[in-house]
Amino acid sequence: MNTSGAELLAADLSADRLHAALRDPALASMNFLNEVAGRFPQAVPLAAGRPSEEFFDVDDLPRYLRIFCDHLAAEQGASAEIVRRTLFQYGRTKGIIHELIARHLARDEGVGVDPESIVVTVGCQEAMFLVLRALRTDEHDVVLSVSPGYVGLAGAARLADMPLRPVRENEDGVDLGHLVEQIERARAAGQRPRAFYLVPDFANPSGASLGLDARQKLLAIAAEHDLLLLEDNPYGLFPAEDGRRLPTLKALDTSRRVVYLGSLAKTCFPGARIGFVVADQRVAGTDGGSTLFADELAKIKSMLTVNTSPLAQAVAGGKLLEHDCSLVTANAREKQLYARNLRLLLEGLHRRFPPGGDHRVSWNTPDGGFFVVVTVPFTADDAALEYGARTYGVLWTPMSHFYDGRGGENQLRLSVSAVSPDEIEAGLDRLAMLIADLTGGTRATP
Amino acid sequence: MNTSGAELLAADLSADRLHAALRDPALASMNFLNEVAGRFPQAVPLAAGRPSEEFFDVDDLPRYLRIFCDHLAAEQGASAEIVRRTLFQYGRTKGIIHELIARHLARDEGVGVDPESIVVTVGCQEAMFLVLRALRTDEHDVVLSVSPGYVGLAGAARLADMPLRPVRENEDGVDLGHLVEQIERARAAGQRPRAFYLVPDFANPSGASLGLDARQKLLAIAAEHDLLLLEDNPYGLFPAEDGRRLPTLKALDTSRRVVYLGSLAKTCFPGARIGFVVADQRVAGTDGGSTLFADELAKIKSMLTVNTSPLAQAVAGGKLLEHDCSLVTANAREKQLYARNLRLLLEGLHRRFPPGGDHRVSWNTPDGGFFVVVTVPFTADDAALEYGARTYGVLWTPMSHFYDGRGGENQLRLSVSAVSPDEIEAGLDRLAMLIADLTGGTRATP
Repeated sequence: MNTSGAELLAADLSADRLHAALRDPALASMNFLNEVAGRFPQAVPLAAGRPSEEFFDVDDLPRYLRIFCDHLAAEQGASAEIVRRTLFQYGRTKGIIHELIARHLARDEGVGVDPESIVVTVGCQEAMFLVLRALRTDEHDVVLSVSPGYVGLAGAARLADMPLRPVRENEDGVDLGHLVEQIERARAAGQRPRAFYLVPDFANPSGASLGLDARQKLLAIAAEHDLLLLEDNPYGLFPAEDGRRLPTLKALDTSRRVVYLGSLAKTCFPGARIGFVVADQRVAGTDGGSTLFADELAKIKSMLTVNTSPLAQAVAGGKLLEHDCSLVTANAREKQLYARNLRLLLEGLHRRFPPGGDHRVSWNTPDGGFFVVVTVPFTADDAALEYGARTYGVLWTPMSHFYDGRGGENQLRLSVSAVSPDEIEAGLDRLAMLIADLTGGTRATP
Repeated sequence: MNTSGAELLAADLSADRLHAALRDPALASMNFLNEVAGRFPQAVPLAAGRPSEEFFDVDDLPRYLRIFCDHLAAEQGASAEIVRRTLFQYGRTKGIIHELIARHLARDEGVGVDPESIVVTVGCQEAMFLVLRALRTDEHDVVLSVSPGYVGLAGAARLADMPLRPVRENEDGVDLGHLVEQIERARAAGQRPRAFYLVPDFANPSGASLGLDARQKLLAIAAEHDLLLLEDNPYGLFPAEDGRRLPTLKALDTSRRVVYLGSLAKTCFPGARIGFVVADQRVAGTDGGSTLFADELAKIKSMLTVNTSPLAQAVAGGKLLEHDCSLVTANAREKQLYARNLRLLLEGLHRRFPPGGDHRVSWNTPDGGFFVVVTVPFTADDAALEYGARTYGVLWTPMSHFYDGRGGENQLRLSVSAVSPDEIEAGLDRLAMLIADLTGGTRATP
């Protein structure tokens, strides 16, 4: 083992003998973003993608727990002993709120799935890793992902030693021509494209959504090229004020082509760390029989985290039950808040950078979700971010962080989820000053 | 993609194109054990390794939560807003109860560690995977493990694509000669032995413990051969009635040779899914600087589960705080229960199979923990287990399940953790009948 540095003992380790994912620049850059946010706590957090805290209440937690326990007793006839065992002991690997999640999918998404095809996971991140780990048999298996894309998927892929091929976004959400091209290039290079990951609704980071027609075409491409679609849907319940919700890919899926990745982080709360995966694919065994893909994922989970905290599941389950398993109903206030904030941000940009001006600033208009992408006439990199935080007190995210390779150099992501209307106004004022400063225009007075 | 079977759609998958760990016989055999236990719910569970439920109380949960919130407010000066954010939002990747765990280690184990070197994990299973994933750079890295050994470690190793070399147990706990032999064999085969995994106190499945002298020798071997020791300590707080606790390897470790794997499953409750790893090793960077191994593990965790449920941590933290961070104090009743059960089981075996009889039944006498290994004059395999469950109503675990390859064919593991004194008596009566039956002696009347 190579060690260096006077303070190191022989026992210690060397970075070059640790897994390569640890030397990934993407990882360092995410740490940098967190570190900058930590260093400037007074800056307006237009970078933060976490949900609003406005409706969180510590007193809700014991009530959720009680509702879930009452449900076990009333609906499943559980004795006090069984209730206690369900919360305190190890539990079913695939989870204990799978039936409640299935009811949510039926009510809110019009998706009918067998609860047995659901695996409850430690956040959606574990679900991504389980799926990629299962699909990765050797170095030839690759996953395709929309680019710019969610860094968590890239992280899970690296941890599973699975190469990732980017697929471009366009005005329809995904450049389907580029998807086919990348599938064919991968095959030509001797690779097996196993799955394509995307967020069809109000994507992170771009805010883009796939139209209905594009969804149908994507399903056809997946069928033609024998590809699974990994549909991640953390923001789908939050359309814009005048927006509507389109059917999910899973709702349109008639041939078990879609593995649906769910998160309760934005619709329940992140601190429960509850996500799930719907994996209703049949897996043909070598003995002629078949199993559910969900059961194969559960086997991997048994080697990774054993099971998702029943205590945390019980609290999330109580919140689901309190709203008859509709997360749309449960999130009525949140939906309004995010849609209002999105409108305020877009209006605020419009006021500060009116059409026809020579500001060379533009942005997209998402149909919902947390994020807006702004294009600016300078390099929106880490240095610009830090300068803006220090000089003007505003935080945003360089879009280049969401590309695997080059891209987004002149773009930044703004988030509306964890800010108040006043903060949106103040944040945009400060951002406008930073833009003026870095564009070389007259420096505004803070 | 190869699919077969009339009910399969083109979208579906084939087992031979999923990760090899899913075809591991060890996995199938663990599923078999769970399945048998499920099919015979009335059988006496001398197989179950889960903790006693006797002291679990659903009403404790809100109190633990309140204690933790009060602690945040009182000790850390957190506002109501910060308390709410701590429980509901995403949190620190390395966890939020690291300081409480550090206090527990100081109080109960005499181990002084910087809280920053602790990563709170989703059970100890995630901690194992994080460590192995970090140490696995390519196909040459291998981990050594005591055999018979905990199946969770074997599972984590397979999931990390890391070969495992078994090291024999002997009357001193571990055959240190065989350890050195296996290190040398691995090196000769072009492999890099990175770490040796063991449970020094009251091991699962064997109940064996390492003597103080063997602990010192093991640390010396690890230093000489540049190996990390992965010390797993789920049962250390539960010595036998006349037993004593030896210092952990981590307490004896003066050169950061030991990575300590902790579990709160048996000392708090499994449903919180809280484990932790102490990784105070320094990692030399390529730039001349150095980081904590814990921070490298946290980077992997950020790609795997993001963070451990703050809600679950808060509940576990409340239990720690209620007992001034001493799990010895918190588990006074549990310690007594397990020690009594272990005595009753050993006395019961002694009465049924007295010394000098021609029964050809023998067993070890662990110094504590949950498990006793019984040697019998027949093949104690899955068929015998199922036969015993069906015919005599008793469950136990074939020791062969804990070997990677051959071993333990005539041995079975009995567990005392989830049974009452009456169940121990009844279970041993039934086991004695099964033994008489399978040995070919006179069949006893049920």
